[in-house]
Amino acid sequence: MLSGLGRRISYPSGVPAQAADARHTRINATIGQVTDGAGGALVLPRVRELLGSLEAEDAVLYAAQGGEPSLRAAWAQWQARDPRVARAARSLPLVTQGLTHALSIVSDLFVDPETRVLVPEPCWGNYRGCLGLRRGAAVDSYPLLQGDRLAVDEIARTLAKDSRPKVVVVNLPSNPVGFTPTQAEAEALAEVLRSAPGPLVVVCDDAYLGMGWEPDLLQGSFFGLLEGADPERLLAVKVDGATKELFLFGARVGFLTFHAEPEVAAVLEDKAKAVARATVSSMSRMGQELVLQTLKQAELHTQREAIRRVLAGRYRALRAAMEAHDLEAYPFNSGFFALVKVAEPEAVRRRLLERGVGVVAFPEVGAVRLSYGSVSEADVTELVSELAAAIAHVARPVATPSHDPVASPS
Amino acid sequence: MLSGLGRRISYPSGVPAQAADARHTRINATIGQVTDGAGGALVLPRVRELLGSLEAEDAVLYAAQGGEPSLRAAWAQWQARDPRVARAARSLPLVTQGLTHALSIVSDLFVDPETRVLVPEPCWGNYRGCLGLRRGAAVDSYPLLQGDRLAVDEIARTLAKDSRPKVVVVNLPSNPVGFTPTQAEAEALAEVLRSAPGPLVVVCDDAYLGMGWEPDLLQGSFFGLLEGADPERLLAVKVDGATKELFLFGARVGFLTFHAEPEVAAVLEDKAKAVARATVSSMSRMGQELVLQTLKQAELHTQREAIRRVLAGRYRALRAAMEAHDLEAYPFNSGFFALVKVAEPEAVRRRLLERGVGVVAFPEVGAVRLSYGSVSEADVTELVSELAAAIAHVARPVATPSHDPVASPS
Repeated sequence: MLSGLGRRISYPSGVPAQAADARHTRINATIGQVTDGAGGALVLPRVRELLGSLEAEDAVLYAAQGGEPSLRAAWAQWQARDPRVARAARSLPLVTQGLTHALSIVSDLFVDPETRVLVPEPCWGNYRGCLGLRRGAAVDSYPLLQGDRLAVDEIARTLAKDSRPKVVVVNLPSNPVGFTPTQAEAEALAEVLRSAPGPLVVVCDDAYLGMGWEPDLLQGSFFGLLEGADPERLLAVKVDGATKELFLFGARVGFLTFHAEPEVAAVLEDKAKAVARATVSSMSRMGQELVLQTLKQAELHTQREAIRRVLAGRYRALRAAMEAHDLEAYPFNSGFFALVKVAEPEAVRRRLLERGVGVVAFPEVGAVRLSYGSVSEADVTELVSELAAAIAHVARPVATPSHDPVASPS
Repeated sequence: MLSGLGRRISYPSGVPAQAADARHTRINATIGQVTDGAGGALVLPRVRELLGSLEAEDAVLYAAQGGEPSLRAAWAQWQARDPRVARAARSLPLVTQGLTHALSIVSDLFVDPETRVLVPEPCWGNYRGCLGLRRGAAVDSYPLLQGDRLAVDEIARTLAKDSRPKVVVVNLPSNPVGFTPTQAEAEALAEVLRSAPGPLVVVCDDAYLGMGWEPDLLQGSFFGLLEGADPERLLAVKVDGATKELFLFGARVGFLTFHAEPEVAAVLEDKAKAVARATVSSMSRMGQELVLQTLKQAELHTQREAIRRVLAGRYRALRAAMEAHDLEAYPFNSGFFALVKVAEPEAVRRRLLERGVGVVAFPEVGAVRLSYGSVSEADVTELVSELAAAIAHVARPVATPSHDPVASPS
């Protein structure tokens, strides 16, 4: 399943490896960073002020290559809230610079120009850049939906079309649709993937994991449904992170986890670390410390539920407003998005900008995306009214009497 | 000078571009992040505690693609301390996830398998990974030194060897040598590069900029010496960052700046942003805020000089100890390193580990590297004594009476 680069690359025995050997030395003259000579940071006094309760050592010294071991262990435990994931043989999560970085490592390791990359349609636009363009591969798509359901049969047909090695992205809850299938639909898709001839790399983009607002949706990660798949044919990869799960968007802390037995996991982890070393070297130490401290706190569940309730409230307000205005959307029940079908997405977006309202146009699927993550419940109703008015405006521009601001007497 | 990928890639008109359009809207439903609906962050209470005096908005919301505009402007001003850089037509520095990321963007934009990548010898090992291996290109080297001087003539001969497009890395002060040439030597090298037939991309890796400990060294960046070079033949690229210049190693804030007139600079910046988007998306917001606040403070120069004085003290102690022990090193006068010549680098490194001392072996140039950035002045003398003893030990292992720990009583 490895790409040419994936086969060639391995973690070098250079400075980081030798620095790791010297971790416990009395005099450590390995790494090119500045310390007080006893492991403490030597920082500008202003930096120490700014860091507040974060220790300078945990913020400005280099993080371990592949991520801080304590954070990797804590995230593995966080993932294990999902009993199917907990059961799966998997590598220790590798820390990445956000989820995009995890996806770009996957593409370096598994995508060659001749690889068939399959992403859902509709999908997050950056898949084309990070999985395809960078590696010179074409990106094909499979339909995510058939009516209001996961397009399991259609996906099976798309997979069967040719026998090239494939990298398939499964992104549930979906961006931009805000859709999660039922448990039964997800299981049917997992069965299709398990029985595909392969070689097949299934990338589970779990960015919005845990953000479901309806009962009877798939619980936990799709990655868990691939547990025990035949490793000769299918490699499942989990891409997740603190970005959305802990509401730490700008911290850029993602993770990359392979479903594999220990020996294979070690090789894949070594190769992924090597790609990361050659792309960004180590990851943000501060971000890692922030995530670790957040995971450690006893009240995490309660504090997280409070934010989830806010989001669920906005979701319900959005549904109600859309029904009131009779707007049609792709089926949405999770994540932070609704993808509303409109005839002229770009024109509607531009009209809304004139009205002081920002949405994202997806002309390729005839829709605009509303992110209710960044709109208060109070504003959601107005957002939808403005959208309905903009759709009407674009469809039949209202004739207005001429008001030429230049000609009119001030 | 662009690679195939560099020619193909451009910044997509997707979510980030549309979010930028909506920056000033009253209701902003563009970005998939969670806010309070009025631009404020909605964070876990524990996160707010941890952030201290950093505003949550400046720490955990997404940073602008390409980097926060305020930081980019502040870094451009910081670079302009160097009058030659201030005079050069250059792009606004693009924020990268550390200097390695800037180098990897350069390789994506300018390196194809047939490009001749030239790095100094001795050099930082990761150049091979980030500039060559990732792009399927072979990495050649040029000699950095001829005796105690910059190998200007030898570099000219190496450049002239073939007419392929070239990417040449100039890293002054040098890692791992800790060497900076005189102003005259640097000017002679700049003249060689300016008059080379091209196409030539000169990557100025300024990681250790400003860390010179002797008089009469090149002042400022080598990038400034390429000011006004013929853009048809030579593109100068500056890679620098807060990592070493502001002692913020784990913050992962680097910058990428092109020497180009505004129209060309805009195209290169767009392409670099597109590569960054496809590799890591946005950069760490917290790191950027930390660097911005650090640059803004009035006492920056004084606070920075205090740390530089500590480093200069360690440097002088190291020189004195090496002379006392009659150790031979590559010429060093800057940065955080000395590269000491030893016959069996790996054996010496292993011996030192047994003694609780960590150094890095560079077997390819018959040396071990001492990083005095992380050794106190008080420990530097012991570091050198241990090194001298290890060299002697490896050269003539002392015969010791047999002490078999298993056989001995107790």
